[in-house]
Amino acid sequence: MSGMARVKVEDLRAVCCEALRAAGVSDLHTGIVADVLVTTDSWGVFTHGTKLLGGYLKRARAGGLRTDARPAVVSEGGAWALVDGGSTFGQVTGKFAMERAIEKARDSGIGYVGVRNSCHFGAAGYYAWLAARQNMIGQAMANDMPSMGAPGSKKAVTGTNPFAFAAPAGDHDPILLDMSLSTAAGGKVYAAHQRGEPIQEDWLIGNDGRPCNDGSLYPFSASLAPMAGYKGYGLAVMSEILTGVLPGAGITWEVGSWIFDAPENPTHHGAAFLAINVGAMMPIENFRARVDQLISEIHGVPTADDRPLMMPGEREWQHRRSALERGIELPEDVLESLASCLELAGVGAPAWLEDR
Amino acid sequence: MSGMARVKVEDLRAVCCEALRAAGVSDLHTGIVADVLVTTDSWGVFTHGTKLLGGYLKRARAGGLRTDARPAVVSEGGAWALVDGGSTFGQVTGKFAMERAIEKARDSGIGYVGVRNSCHFGAAGYYAWLAARQNMIGQAMANDMPSMGAPGSKKAVTGTNPFAFAAPAGDHDPILLDMSLSTAAGGKVYAAHQRGEPIQEDWLIGNDGRPCNDGSLYPFSASLAPMAGYKGYGLAVMSEILTGVLPGAGITWEVGSWIFDAPENPTHHGAAFLAINVGAMMPIENFRARVDQLISEIHGVPTADDRPLMMPGEREWQHRRSALERGIELPEDVLESLASCLELAGVGAPAWLEDR
Repeated sequence: MSGMARVKVEDLRAVCCEALRAAGVSDLHTGIVADVLVTTDSWGVFTHGTKLLGGYLKRARAGGLRTDARPAVVSEGGAWALVDGGSTFGQVTGKFAMERAIEKARDSGIGYVGVRNSCHFGAAGYYAWLAARQNMIGQAMANDMPSMGAPGSKKAVTGTNPFAFAAPAGDHDPILLDMSLSTAAGGKVYAAHQRGEPIQEDWLIGNDGRPCNDGSLYPFSASLAPMAGYKGYGLAVMSEILTGVLPGAGITWEVGSWIFDAPENPTHHGAAFLAINVGAMMPIENFRARVDQLISEIHGVPTADDRPLMMPGEREWQHRRSALERGIELPEDVLESLASCLELAGVGAPAWLEDR
Repeated sequence: MSGMARVKVEDLRAVCCEALRAAGVSDLHTGIVADVLVTTDSWGVFTHGTKLLGGYLKRARAGGLRTDARPAVVSEGGAWALVDGGSTFGQVTGKFAMERAIEKARDSGIGYVGVRNSCHFGAAGYYAWLAARQNMIGQAMANDMPSMGAPGSKKAVTGTNPFAFAAPAGDHDPILLDMSLSTAAGGKVYAAHQRGEPIQEDWLIGNDGRPCNDGSLYPFSASLAPMAGYKGYGLAVMSEILTGVLPGAGITWEVGSWIFDAPENPTHHGAAFLAINVGAMMPIENFRARVDQLISEIHGVPTADDRPLMMPGEREWQHRRSALERGIELPEDVLESLASCLELAGVGAPAWLEDR
């Protein structure tokens, strides 16, 4: 057992689809969920890729995730729409909502789509990237069950509320910023704790309201620390308003945990998507050239280790090129999670998983 | 000399207007600039209030800030507009642009306005609040001459690129988040250094690319550290795209310093404003009640010091109520700056300034 396996992107996708279908998920939903998760792994963001599949399938089998529901626009106007996800996969609703935002932006220059009755949508960057692929600027955000505190709070206040931004470039890879609003994502705390790696002092706030470095206490007796203290907390409040309050979704503790809560219940996640149609405001080639100019300039900044500064997403695009050429090196925690997920789904494990 | 003076809001406003008029600024521009600066002082954000007036007047007298220019829409579509500020005050252009965004949002549900040929606009929160006063959600951001590094960079990469968000509440004060993307705003580094207070280790990056706590090195031999490391840097790149690349404004080093650069030159600042018309998507009273619910819930979270968590802006609104009732307590650095500004403008100092 090597602790790691190199898997072709299409093989990883195939096994995800097989597991989803075995759980009764429609072909349409299956293709979308698999694409989001495998793309995320191809970026090297293993905390939000296929590792999540087992948790989703548990909810899908128990009925909290509705495998037969389709997201629908419930109200709309010139440059906005509100979408009800019908408690199906956050990936399906996220893609649907960003596509509506892109349509609105095509007509009006910008589009906002708010989402209610969604579930965990995985990596926010995927949806922002959907806009960038259409020559637009994209933003995607979501709320989540509270797991993040504010400076001095003895319990969690908001979700870590992922935030993503993407913009097309010219000769360079698209800009792709994808981050949680906590110092470290919850998945990183789990992963570090599972691997026996230490937790940084500024990652957690204990239930006494003070910094804490015992990863085992999260999430029940510690909350994630907001990035940059009150600034990260402030951005989380903003996110809660844009993703929860305005779309009519759950707010803070009204949002269930897709991992810990009873899997037969919907989670009431909210989300928000923004698309800006660059071409309406400036010839797209000018914009691309200007983004390239920004990138070249940043790449030229001298650094302590003499390596060029990375643009947001640059590491992920490098990882993806390697993944598409040579396969994805899945870490052991992902492989374990996939193995138990396939067992749960009653699907035989492929050789690369079985023989590792 | 007490080192502090308590000044009535209207008296502070009057003296600002007098100085601006003496420098040849039109009544229209004078009223706007004074309102932004005095409102900012009334929030207790003294780094971005009337302390800035002297610097603006120097540029206005030298011609870099055009006192006779008016911002104009140069192109527009359904839910967007691009505005050329004509190198007049960033405050005048900022207010104009947010008002256009509000108009667009009234028709289309959301409005984006990008700005070029602006100058330093002071506190971003003022413009976001303009939207909140119209029952809308507002965002305001701007770029600036690079003064902020990225993790490991030996020189500045982007501006600290202020970011503000506002939303109306019901019984509570509006949500008002106003922050720079650096760990500490440049004004705070100056102010702390001027007062002989120590600079925190995580506020600056030296020109060796490593953390640095010598406040005297900023801005020429150190850059401000981005908040939360690469996340703050990533948000600054996003801001640069929304405020500089897309509106056709200066990008990074194309943006001049309104303090240090030759005052006869325009600074080419960019900015971006977003307004979301809540009432188009949800009855405004529902929205207000939902924001109040969010606030009540956060106020109920237990804390280490047993004091309720502050909402973004809550401290500023408390400060403003006190300022409107009992006057603003201006700190000594602001008083000194005002005194020399009035001297420069050839305007006699009022008693509260002279006799302090």
